[in-house]
Amino acid sequence: MNDTRDPNAPDSMSEGVETGVISPGFIAQFIGAVGDGDKPYLWRTVKGLHPADTADLLEHLPPEAFRKAIHLLGKDLPAEAVAELSDNMRLEALHELTDAAVTAMIGHLDSDDASFLLSDLEEDRRVRILSKVSATDRAAIESSLSFDDESAGRLMQRAFVAAPVFWSVGQAIDHMRSVSDDDLPDTFFEIYIVDPAFRLQGSVPVSRLLRYSRETPLKDIMKDVPVEVRPEMDQEEVAYIFRQYNLASAPVVDEAGRLTGMITIDDVVDVIQEEAEEDILALSGVSEAGVNQSLFSAVRARIPWLLVNLLTAFVASSVVSLFAHVINEVVALAFLMPVVAGLSGNAGSQALAVSVRAIAERDLEGPLVRRAIRREALTAMINGTIIAWSAALIVLLWFHNPTISIVIGLSMMITFTWAGLVGILAPLTLKRFGADPAVASSVFVLTTIDMASFFVFLGLASLMLL
Amino acid sequence: MNDTRDPNAPDSMSEGVETGVISPGFIAQFIGAVGDGDKPYLWRTVKGLHPADTADLLEHLPPEAFRKAIHLLGKDLPAEAVAELSDNMRLEALHELTDAAVTAMIGHLDSDDASFLLSDLEEDRRVRILSKVSATDRAAIESSLSFDDESAGRLMQRAFVAAPVFWSVGQAIDHMRSVSDDDLPDTFFEIYIVDPAFRLQGSVPVSRLLRYSRETPLKDIMKDVPVEVRPEMDQEEVAYIFRQYNLASAPVVDEAGRLTGMITIDDVVDVIQEEAEEDILALSGVSEAGVNQSLFSAVRARIPWLLVNLLTAFVASSVVSLFAHVINEVVALAFLMPVVAGLSGNAGSQALAVSVRAIAERDLEGPLVRRAIRREALTAMINGTIIAWSAALIVLLWFHNPTISIVIGLSMMITFTWAGLVGILAPLTLKRFGADPAVASSVFVLTTIDMASFFVFLGLASLMLL
Repeated sequence: MNDTRDPNAPDSMSEGVETGVISPGFIAQFIGAVGDGDKPYLWRTVKGLHPADTADLLEHLPPEAFRKAIHLLGKDLPAEAVAELSDNMRLEALHELTDAAVTAMIGHLDSDDASFLLSDLEEDRRVRILSKVSATDRAAIESSLSFDDESAGRLMQRAFVAAPVFWSVGQAIDHMRSVSDDDLPDTFFEIYIVDPAFRLQGSVPVSRLLRYSRETPLKDIMKDVPVEVRPEMDQEEVAYIFRQYNLASAPVVDEAGRLTGMITIDDVVDVIQEEAEEDILALSGVSEAGVNQSLFSAVRARIPWLLVNLLTAFVASSVVSLFAHVINEVVALAFLMPVVAGLSGNAGSQALAVSVRAIAERDLEGPLVRRAIRREALTAMINGTIIAWSAALIVLLWFHNPTISIVIGLSMMITFTWAGLVGILAPLTLKRFGADPAVASSVFVLTTIDMASFFVFLGLASLMLL
Repeated sequence: MNDTRDPNAPDSMSEGVETGVISPGFIAQFIGAVGDGDKPYLWRTVKGLHPADTADLLEHLPPEAFRKAIHLLGKDLPAEAVAELSDNMRLEALHELTDAAVTAMIGHLDSDDASFLLSDLEEDRRVRILSKVSATDRAAIESSLSFDDESAGRLMQRAFVAAPVFWSVGQAIDHMRSVSDDDLPDTFFEIYIVDPAFRLQGSVPVSRLLRYSRETPLKDIMKDVPVEVRPEMDQEEVAYIFRQYNLASAPVVDEAGRLTGMITIDDVVDVIQEEAEEDILALSGVSEAGVNQSLFSAVRARIPWLLVNLLTAFVASSVVSLFAHVINEVVALAFLMPVVAGLSGNAGSQALAVSVRAIAERDLEGPLVRRAIRREALTAMINGTIIAWSAALIVLLWFHNPTISIVIGLSMMITFTWAGLVGILAPLTLKRFGADPAVASSVFVLTTIDMASFFVFLGLASLMLL
């Protein structure tokens, strides 16, 4: 074969993989091969890469090359690589692939990943593909899809290892040696012990199973499961349990206590990452983001908050307009009012970020709430005092007007305290009413701080200066 | 014993544990027992709880009761519970415990957790305690402490299972059955295959080991390790590798490729959580936060950003002062200038949050950078156009002055585009110079947007209105 490309592409990448970056040269080479329709090169490259790296490589391609690469690879594209693609690109890849290719991929995946892929498809295509997979896979996938998005039921896989409570270590090991690979999960960290009605009795970590002699009864070495995970449970709750109890996997049981699935840490790690990201974005008023997000969806993810903010900004500016006569009298107030509003707004953002984080960490519960509110109020008052009188000093040096200096000092002390209180009370209140504390808090917190700043500062000015 | 307290406390908590909350009644009961010095009750309660729940319970106590509880429990306090406490409370607990109690705890922990606890102590106390633990433990802990904070070397534990490459499955299992529990890690998910010089050759997941017959040579079933983790590696890099390759554990090798330790997912989950939280807080100008953070440290964590912001706010307000004559002429400009600055600032925060998140996710690398910058610029221009002319319409309806309306429309289009560009370019530039993109970006982005807003809006106004 007359191939001028590096015959050992994956190896040439080892350096790239180490730093988590696919090298630009490697990407360029791959794009060249896609352009030439060089299937054997694409196939060899993908075969030599970890599926996660294949997904990274594909995400770095320009849209046209991406579609062509998916098309050329077809059913040779590893199912795991497709599952690792970012949302938009996964949708596009599935769109590009034939039904036969998608069906083959579904067969290779654990049921949680399979239903994850299928949930992206239009109803009729999903039905068509499901009709072609094996009956067992179909049942597992359909039951998974019957649970809500972001529930434990969606995260869990149907393949797990269960052993009757009366078995010994040896019987469990012999069982695992005898069943076919297809009937076992790819990797698992514990086996579950069940009674004859398949009710969960306990679990034995695989590393524990190995340490005991073949005759040891499983029930002598099994451990209690610290918390029950139910399929309806929200994925955020699942993530909390995994973190709290340092779990690598957890059984999922139905309302009768029967074992129905298993959740593994890799899926939970993605949830933890997603939830943290959602909070970061929500605090800045962005509903979603991602590499390769389309322009349209980037605009759509950000415009709602800006539109709300447009209204609140004019409400705040109407507060300023109430004091037009004061500003006409003392134009310096116009220079200073953004200082008051801006600094108080930042103090509010600080309190908000701390509170949203603490709520997500479940650190704001029970008796800790009152302590946290007191701390926020005091912190705001102390910082407010320091900043307010520093600002007052700067103003005094600038305008040589002690009254304006006192006005800015007093008003900042008040607005800082307000900022600290609203920064913790707004998310706590939203949470109490079942809303996401991160999403709506920013609007409310920043708007009320702006209004309070303008009102207090200009109001005090009109009382003391006119 | 005349004990009116719920004799079965931990069970009564099962509901509390399920929702991750230790019930207020249970806490009150525990506080009562602490007050009475009822050691047996405390001891029974702690024994019945998962260490993570014990840590939660202790964190919910008022400071006085916390210290007394630690004192009463002494060496009966599980080492794992102390390791799970938040930073401040762990320090306080260690302060309250005797050297003998801490020494006993160290002996119960894996080396990563043991060095984690010891790293909190003052030098001389650490030396004193280390001199009392076993020589093996001491060597492991000292070597761990020799690595930087936040490095792979600190995350890794010294206990792992290694097998020579020429062993069979049966030999590996027999080895694990014969060694004492103390020489094996509490839980492990894979065993490592080494050559005679202890250089890492591959790994065999424990669940894979179980599926093969006793005669199978390990080298036939071992897998390549996807990426080498070195002890000097930053923990953020380690977290990235775990997420990218869906790992539950990873071997750590030295520069000669020799196996030196193992990192497990539970430690990495904490890192992922911490790093995401650091970004949330940093974007709002908070350097650290936590449940039970002291007032002093809360003030100290927030005042630096406010002080910097104090200066930048006055710089921005001096821009406004350049246009005092325009504001004197048209006081409406004073109402509107916070609208321009506020909305553009929010557009900048959106771009910043998206970029900081993408950088943390390693989505902003190679050819994706140019695409992302183009998308941010276009998104800002589109949103800027929509918001700018909506604002212009509101202004027209409010002031019936088409010129002011055009001034606000034009200036917002310009400042939104600026906000979008600086929101992505600032963190990218900081990252290129090796700084944390989240920390310093906010200051720079918001200050330049404020200044640009005031300058463009008031400048255009002075050109078009005077």
